[in-house]
Amino acid sequence: MALIVQKYGGTSVGSVERINHVAEKVIAARAKGDDIVVVVSAMSGETNRLVSLAKSMADPPNAREFDVLLSTGEQVTIGLLCIALEARGCPARSYTGSQVRILTDSAYNKARILNIDNERIQQDLTAGRVVVVAGFQGVDEDGSITTLGRGGSDTTAVALATALKAEECQIYTDVDGVYTTDPRIVSRARRLERISFEEMLEMASLGSKVLQIRSVEFASKYNVPVRVLSSFEDGPGTLIAPEDETMEQALISGIAFNKDEAKITVLGVPDRPGIAYQILGAVSDANIEVDMIIQNVAPDGSSTDFTFTVHRNDYKQALSLVTAKAKELGAREVNGDDCIVKISLVGVGMRSHAGIASTMFRTLANEGINIQMISTSEIKISVVVNEKYLELGVRVLHDAFKLEEAA
Amino acid sequence: MALIVQKYGGTSVGSVERINHVAEKVIAARAKGDDIVVVVSAMSGETNRLVSLAKSMADPPNAREFDVLLSTGEQVTIGLLCIALEARGCPARSYTGSQVRILTDSAYNKARILNIDNERIQQDLTAGRVVVVAGFQGVDEDGSITTLGRGGSDTTAVALATALKAEECQIYTDVDGVYTTDPRIVSRARRLERISFEEMLEMASLGSKVLQIRSVEFASKYNVPVRVLSSFEDGPGTLIAPEDETMEQALISGIAFNKDEAKITVLGVPDRPGIAYQILGAVSDANIEVDMIIQNVAPDGSSTDFTFTVHRNDYKQALSLVTAKAKELGAREVNGDDCIVKISLVGVGMRSHAGIASTMFRTLANEGINIQMISTSEIKISVVVNEKYLELGVRVLHDAFKLEEAA
Repeated sequence: MALIVQKYGGTSVGSVERINHVAEKVIAARAKGDDIVVVVSAMSGETNRLVSLAKSMADPPNAREFDVLLSTGEQVTIGLLCIALEARGCPARSYTGSQVRILTDSAYNKARILNIDNERIQQDLTAGRVVVVAGFQGVDEDGSITTLGRGGSDTTAVALATALKAEECQIYTDVDGVYTTDPRIVSRARRLERISFEEMLEMASLGSKVLQIRSVEFASKYNVPVRVLSSFEDGPGTLIAPEDETMEQALISGIAFNKDEAKITVLGVPDRPGIAYQILGAVSDANIEVDMIIQNVAPDGSSTDFTFTVHRNDYKQALSLVTAKAKELGAREVNGDDCIVKISLVGVGMRSHAGIASTMFRTLANEGINIQMISTSEIKISVVVNEKYLELGVRVLHDAFKLEEAA
Repeated sequence: MALIVQKYGGTSVGSVERINHVAEKVIAARAKGDDIVVVVSAMSGETNRLVSLAKSMADPPNAREFDVLLSTGEQVTIGLLCIALEARGCPARSYTGSQVRILTDSAYNKARILNIDNERIQQDLTAGRVVVVAGFQGVDEDGSITTLGRGGSDTTAVALATALKAEECQIYTDVDGVYTTDPRIVSRARRLERISFEEMLEMASLGSKVLQIRSVEFASKYNVPVRVLSSFEDGPGTLIAPEDETMEQALISGIAFNKDEAKITVLGVPDRPGIAYQILGAVSDANIEVDMIIQNVAPDGSSTDFTFTVHRNDYKQALSLVTAKAKELGAREVNGDDCIVKISLVGVGMRSHAGIASTMFRTLANEGINIQMISTSEIKISVVVNEKYLELGVRVLHDAFKLEEAA
């Protein structure tokens, strides 16, 4: 008998019918003899409804009170799911984040989990009950309700799985697993049986939005196996777990891409210490997140070129901040481009295999795709190209690395 | 500087605009230098929405989980009202029933308040904040969410006023006070400046549904002055308070009526001990509430006639239960009538004035209104008449006792 934490997202609990369907899935899982703890999100649309109610009142709304309001979304779902379970003769009990005591810091709207009290849940499991916990929410030292930010229900599920030493944390969603790349772009994209935490972190942060990145960090830190599955079809999904040393590693696990970035280049910046800080400081002071950063020494050695990417929504603001700063620093020129896309190869196999970068660059070159920026980490290679090459680039790379074939 | 508890019902917080309006009323009250604690209901329509969600899942829904669901209605309102207050620069903090720690028993859906912890609220008031509390809800010893039943927000407000030793508990609603009778029936009905707890209890239970009866009982028990006011117009409303011995008492405060009753008569019941219990026991075992009960000794001394009233919704079931039981007891006949109305004169002045009953009976007789049942208490006289006489009966009594004139 194992303990399984299951998490169902907003679309999986989006209607009375779907909640009934979830109740049946939970009962089926329990019939296999496992203890089941369920984490649910708000019914799809509900969080948006609450957000617009709040914003019609004040924008931004008071942070503490916004969380009081938002947390009702998941509370509705836990009540309804337990009603559905009990109506089917399955003993169940619901808990809000505050009732479990999912202790968080007091950073309203984006709180971090500090500790989970698992005593009550253990008692219920021992008594043969299914426990249903509201995702996305907690309570601070002071007893105030907090929320973990959008997508925080995944984090709740993984944190609960950790606290309860669950065998597996199952994330039910509207896709049936993690794919080698977006199947809407490459029809032959393949569902991965297994992917390592590190690879998943790179995939998620690069735009394959299956799981909230914080939940993967959490799972990785505490070594909790996470399985992504469809709540609408049966199937094994994709297991996200520690690297399995005994298995032959795939060279490349997948291709991620991000269409939401824009790049800004500062040319001819005097090459002296602190220059990066001065340019990027102005950007981060405005709460704009910077993704890739690349700096090259200029040919003449006295000045340097500096390029970075930001979210497209922040592009205009960042460009004007940097233009002002560049003038101040005596840089030659600032230019920007918001018609770019970042394409990334991800795979732990890269660590031990040379030649992957050159295969990537050659493949793109063969199609006449010009690479504007390159950035690498231990398990990923990212390139920035003109956005018109997104589909072509991803497809030829998917073929070149034979990702449609199982490892 | 006084402490005032204000309660706003569902229609008063039924939209973003109305919640903004409530925020302004709260701020205006606070500007007078008083400490303000606000109790709110769910936005009108919200509780019905949640009830039908639950019932589409299971009917009846699991009681504990039903309360988890229902309690979200008020939680939405406290969040929104605090957002509105904070946006206007008024420091405010919201609390659910569980956060205050409004301790109740574990009778889900109809819990009773056992104790209120006022420490946190006092701290906030001392810090200059408006405190906004979710009505209708509490928490049991075990930490489970409970609700007090429909209309329970009034009870929350009065209980908080008691715990905080508030100067006044103001109930804002869609009427501007308690009237001598229903103004839709008697256009000259007059708003009462003041009414005693006992009179209000008789008025409320008899069908003048301004305040939930439990909240009046609570206020009476703890001597908390309650004021009923309109949330849409300014005005002094009606003060519900202990009897004021120094004032000249009005003979009659008001005329209540109840159109929702039906009567059942058992004729020729053997007159022996326990007979009332045997007849009414069958009815109350079916959870049917009995209102008036009248028994007369029959002329021959050996048998008796027995009449009682129930809610019209329960009439058919009660009639068939009593018919079966009457047969068993050897009663001569059972008959019923669901075309009746109960009209009641209410007034503490009755205690010291004779002749009120005879004035009432003469007034009705003058109009040819036949009285079917009479029942009296210390401060009320109720008669049952054919329902077609409702308007006529109330109007002639209102005139006879000169209720349009202030005492």
